Amino acid sequence: MARATALIEEAAARGARLVVLPEVFSWRGPGTDEAAHGEPIPGPTTDAMSAVARQLGVHLCLGSLLENGPTPQRPYNTSCVIDPEGTLRAVYRKIHLFDVDLPGRVAVTESAARTAGDLPVTVETDVGVLGLSICYDLRFPELYRRLACGGAEILLVPSAFTFPTGVAHWEVLCRARAIENQCWVIAADQGGQSPHGFADWGDSLIVDPWGRVVARAGGGEGLALAEIDLDYLRQVRRELPSLSHIRIEPGRLS
Amino acid sequence: MARATALIEEAAARGARLVVLPEVFSWRGPGTDEAAHGEPIPGPTTDAMSAVARQLGVHLCLGSLLENGPTPQRPYNTSCVIDPEGTLRAVYRKIHLFDVDLPGRVAVTESAARTAGDLPVTVETDVGVLGLSICYDLRFPELYRRLACGGAEILLVPSAFTFPTGVAHWEVLCRARAIENQCWVIAADQGGQSPHGFADWGDSLIVDPWGRVVARAGGGEGLALAEIDLDYLRQVRRELPSLSHIRIEPGRLS
Repeated sequence: MARATALIEEAAARGARLVVLPEVFSWRGPGTDEAAHGEPIPGPTTDAMSAVARQLGVHLCLGSLLENGPTPQRPYNTSCVIDPEGTLRAVYRKIHLFDVDLPGRVAVTESAARTAGDLPVTVETDVGVLGLSICYDLRFPELYRRLACGGAEILLVPSAFTFPTGVAHWEVLCRARAIENQCWVIAADQGGQSPHGFADWGDSLIVDPWGRVVARAGGGEGLALAEIDLDYLRQVRRELPSLSHIRIEPGRLS
Repeated sequence: MARATALIEEAAARGARLVVLPEVFSWRGPGTDEAAHGEPIPGPTTDAMSAVARQLGVHLCLGSLLENGPTPQRPYNTSCVIDPEGTLRAVYRKIHLFDVDLPGRVAVTESAARTAGDLPVTVETDVGVLGLSICYDLRFPELYRRLACGGAEILLVPSAFTFPTGVAHWEVLCRARAIENQCWVIAADQGGQSPHGFADWGDSLIVDPWGRVVARAGGGEGLALAEIDLDYLRQVRRELPSLSHIRIEPGRLS
């Protein structure tokens, strides 16, 4: 929390009005300990970060924290947006849980330890309409369609992408979501070694609505900083109005 | 038609069992002349190409030709699949028509000259289940979700992508469709100068289900050739079963 706060302060000092932290930014530990680290929302972490947002006058996306779920054993993986007044404005529970088994590389069964959400979330703020998502959601374009059709202008993708899937898929999927939805994408990604025994990819990205990577943080801890120009978003949507050409509507959650 | 036939012969001689031609492979001319070049399907072009497919023993995707529509002024932009017996096996009419205006670069209003289709198409063949699409469709991930959920293993994207949109979006969108749908993607793209006054991008691609570009044809006329390994597709889907994690189903056509 102290390190996150220091980085938020640095971002604010450099002019940031919206700061996005990665998935599970506040605590990562062995899967067996996760249930003990769930908390209510609002609760200790959002209270502490509301104070930071208010003090610095920034919008804050807490990429995710573990939120108490319907059973104590399986918390939600939840992203929160706090405004510069310190008000909790949006809560999104990760819909798609990461269950993969890449032999010799990465094996994770997120659904065994966590509860999935079932509600896409957008929130209107002074910096634009934010569309919320977390990490593995990035592989599901229909979620981003729901967000874009719901008015999203800035898609947030706080993540803890694994190294082998990151090297193969991270940038191309972040860019595709920006291009096809003509949105800004802010994708804050954990770097370093995960307590689950594999390396995280890092390389946090900011992508413009034409699909250009305009800022990146590299593999380690740090900031990616960019100006989010919503006039440019409107220009892209006017010149190539693909969002108005959608003919297969995103359906309901199953 | 002669040049297409020569390239199909070359592909077959090099071992191809499926040959994909680009969008509007058989005729491109001024927009005002398009209506006069519509034809029935089956008709002269599909009959001629059925003979080629049968003679060479290949599956053939006629990327698209202009098919007579409900009014003489507005033909469909239609892709056809012919099997090695020469049988017309699938007909797909482009769903998303390209209406853009990039000032000083590209201005096209496809919907003024053509009629849109409204039916996603997959077809089972000896080389795999093919999912059909054309060019601008590439920007609409929900179409490919419908195809993948319908069993598609090989997504065909015959195109005439413009140069400015091609340099910015072609490869990243082809790779994203492969990654998120865990399909092979075969994207045959027109190169050279279009009769509509802009350059086409070229760079036909074949992408594997992990998102790697395994073959490309560069900017001009030529072949991209690759082995389509469906065992590898099954391995990718087993190890990272994201298709089984879809929770927002693609909806109906509006």
